[in-house]
Amino acid sequence: MTGTSAQLDESGIGIVGVGLIGGSIAAALKKSVYSGKIVGFGRNEQRLRKAQSLGLLTEFSTEPDPTSLSEVSLIVVCTPVDRIVEDVRLFADSAKPGTIITDAGSVKAAICDQLQDLTRTGFVGSHPLAGSEKNGFEHADADLFQDRLCFITPHKETPAEEVTRVENFWTTLGMNLHQVGPAEHDRLMSVTSHAPHLIASALAMLLEDEFKPFTGTGFQDTTRIASGDPALWRAILMHNREQLSASLVKFSENLREMSDAIEQGNDQKLEQLLELAKTHRDSLVS
Amino acid sequence: MTGTSAQLDESGIGIVGVGLIGGSIAAALKKSVYSGKIVGFGRNEQRLRKAQSLGLLTEFSTEPDPTSLSEVSLIVVCTPVDRIVEDVRLFADSAKPGTIITDAGSVKAAICDQLQDLTRTGFVGSHPLAGSEKNGFEHADADLFQDRLCFITPHKETPAEEVTRVENFWTTLGMNLHQVGPAEHDRLMSVTSHAPHLIASALAMLLEDEFKPFTGTGFQDTTRIASGDPALWRAILMHNREQLSASLVKFSENLREMSDAIEQGNDQKLEQLLELAKTHRDSLVS
Repeated sequence: MTGTSAQLDESGIGIVGVGLIGGSIAAALKKSVYSGKIVGFGRNEQRLRKAQSLGLLTEFSTEPDPTSLSEVSLIVVCTPVDRIVEDVRLFADSAKPGTIITDAGSVKAAICDQLQDLTRTGFVGSHPLAGSEKNGFEHADADLFQDRLCFITPHKETPAEEVTRVENFWTTLGMNLHQVGPAEHDRLMSVTSHAPHLIASALAMLLEDEFKPFTGTGFQDTTRIASGDPALWRAILMHNREQLSASLVKFSENLREMSDAIEQGNDQKLEQLLELAKTHRDSLVS
Repeated sequence: MTGTSAQLDESGIGIVGVGLIGGSIAAALKKSVYSGKIVGFGRNEQRLRKAQSLGLLTEFSTEPDPTSLSEVSLIVVCTPVDRIVEDVRLFADSAKPGTIITDAGSVKAAICDQLQDLTRTGFVGSHPLAGSEKNGFEHADADLFQDRLCFITPHKETPAEEVTRVENFWTTLGMNLHQVGPAEHDRLMSVTSHAPHLIASALAMLLEDEFKPFTGTGFQDTTRIASGDPALWRAILMHNREQLSASLVKFSENLREMSDAIEQGNDQKLEQLLELAKTHRDSLVS
């Protein structure tokens, strides 16, 4: 048996970056049987004070010194992907030996590969597939992670005990786990999330004012994710360059195959390709 | 004032192709003050009988002879786009002089340009922007057209009186009108509908089984329209080849611009482009 909250020791959990994800982790911990400290860390004292007053945090700090997160046994870094490596190093330096650190970033190789040299503390990458178009701990949801999938992305060299501690943390929040290497995670996400974001954005860019009165639910659905935060997505896309590029090449080949069939007036070929696309898409409907 | 149902003469309306659109036109006419005949035409007698028994049609026929649609003053052809030209010609030959024919096809130039030579009857192209993922008159909805937009696509040579009669028909169903030339219609739709369909399909084609457990609402939204009927969409895409190709070129340029920024590590450029896409997309949200 893994994943019972009894296996999370009660010496405290640190949350670095108390936004929607960090705040929801705090809310989910409170809702579970976990009764240890929940310590928030961030840059904005006023915001952290508000998160504490909402009951999400037991304490907080804006300084990563021994008086803040140095007593907890597990730290979750929930900052944007381009700040995670830096933030993990910051806390790895001041944490007590044996502390385990994980993150919630949407890319993994660029983060995990850089953090293989940590020695005082362990690091195991995570990526909970949960989120919302909302931002900020004000929208924290104790059920955000319930029954959702969480990637755990250790390297081959990562000690099994460290992996287990991180797995126990996410299962306490109600998540199902999927363990893969960091590069494999990025390959999967390049198809299911990162390429779609870029493609939806390239499509949305076509939408000069003259076209706007003539869009329907189809265009709206197809471009919905292009409304995501540009700075967050810039960082995600930049940090998964190689796998993303490979997925875009395949996408462009598919598009080319269909537009060639149209150019050539090859009805049968075009319909076959549309049928294949439909079959794939229909298989997602529960 | 245009668009009051009083201006639709009561000598009968013919509906060729009694599916979701044709059936909804019948339902909307019944709901309006229109009290003339509603004559269905199709290939399958059993289906037409059922549509009549549901109260959608006052009569029906499977033979385009003088006993069927030859008495009505307006015929709406609601068959798939690759059959519209043929069906219009079929009824133009047997209709009484002065009958006006329109259609509901999603492409216009390929249809309207071929029908400029009609003399016994008038033809004015239409495209009601209304639909559903459902098929068949069983899902007919009297409110399907209410407050939605309908393209009316006459040529410059089309007599104004014919345009007015077709406009009156759609406004009776509750639609708002937008008059443009056939080629301009196809240019607009290539951006808002046809390119998105091809792009969503090319993305759905990436979805080999190994990726399926890791898709979320983002992937599902972005590919939803790829579930459309392959035969219907094959015909639509094939009939808007030129404009579609131009829109795909622009889309591919946008995608290339973003992937180049990623390759070059140009954070600022990538974020600018994502910001532009977001601005366009956000402007659609009411």
